[in-house]
Amino acid sequence: MVFNMRISVLRLGHRGERDKRVTTHCALVARAFGASEIILSGERDDKVLESVKKLDKKWGGGFKIRFDANWKKVIRNFKKRGAVVHLTMYGTRLDEFKKPKKPLLVVIGAEKVPACVYKMADFNVSVGSQPHSEIAALAIFLHSLLGNKPLYAKKTGARLKIVPSPRAKIVKKV
Amino acid sequence: MVFNMRISVLRLGHRGERDKRVTTHCALVARAFGASEIILSGERDDKVLESVKKLDKKWGGGFKIRFDANWKKVIRNFKKRGAVVHLTMYGTRLDEFKKPKKPLLVVIGAEKVPACVYKMADFNVSVGSQPHSEIAALAIFLHSLLGNKPLYAKKTGARLKIVPSPRAKIVKKV
Repeated sequence: MVFNMRISVLRLGHRGERDKRVTTHCALVARAFGASEIILSGERDDKVLESVKKLDKKWGGGFKIRFDANWKKVIRNFKKRGAVVHLTMYGTRLDEFKKPKKPLLVVIGAEKVPACVYKMADFNVSVGSQPHSEIAALAIFLHSLLGNKPLYAKKTGARLKIVPSPRAKIVKKV
Repeated sequence: MVFNMRISVLRLGHRGERDKRVTTHCALVARAFGASEIILSGERDDKVLESVKKLDKKWGGGFKIRFDANWKKVIRNFKKRGAVVHLTMYGTRLDEFKKPKKPLLVVIGAEKVPACVYKMADFNVSVGSQPHSEIAALAIFLHSLLGNKPLYAKKTGARLKIVPSPRAKIVKKV
């Protein structure tokens, strides 16, 4: 585990074909920036689940991905053992956010997030107050929890590893 | 201008409906994190251009977006006056990148980036060496150029402004 606390991500409002790529990016960012799992809600989409599972087998880390239609229950259950952070352009400033010392559920939305999410969350945090992207917001938020250090560690169980290079694609089997 | 240098972004390989949302996220991230323009290549997609222009009118900043089928020429022309950074998971570490004191063109790809891009770029830089998202890579890269400070400044000419809030959506007309 990259963090000294467990991070889960909840992606709300997935809509089939339209969001397939954006939701996949959300999952890959969660994984690459040290979260241990992502829960997808909205429409069930097995293709997204399978492609992320396949990638994790190749690149390691044991990242979990699952679908749960009942996102309210996911949030309520998580609140028994951790804190819920909703990323929204309307929230308080990221640089004023102090992470509590317990597991975190990071909630990211699709276009319209139901109003009750703002109330259910323990923190509504913004990554800038301009409209941009839940993928970018998630990346910057998780990266800031890591002290803004980029990640170059090999993940546990990886079959492949990249050697950073100025000009070539160097991928090693491990 | 947020940066003391001009930043342009070039998005390669846009493929119509499939990439519409991801490319829009790329453009919005470029804009929110202080780049002054994005050039889209691949398939022409006027819907993406229009939606980003509309958003910029509302939220300010004078961000430019345009399509250019000839991305090689865009890169070659830019090299006469600035440096080209290609973001790729195979590149050198972000924390080892020293920004040159001239305008930057940040190149981000779609799934497959032609091999010549690695050669045409002055720098191939990775944001972590795990597969994730060009949207996240662009956000983290631009954010790191800003010293990892999140952006809460109102943009020039904005009609709307958000007041950060722990619980409510506060949008003011300006």
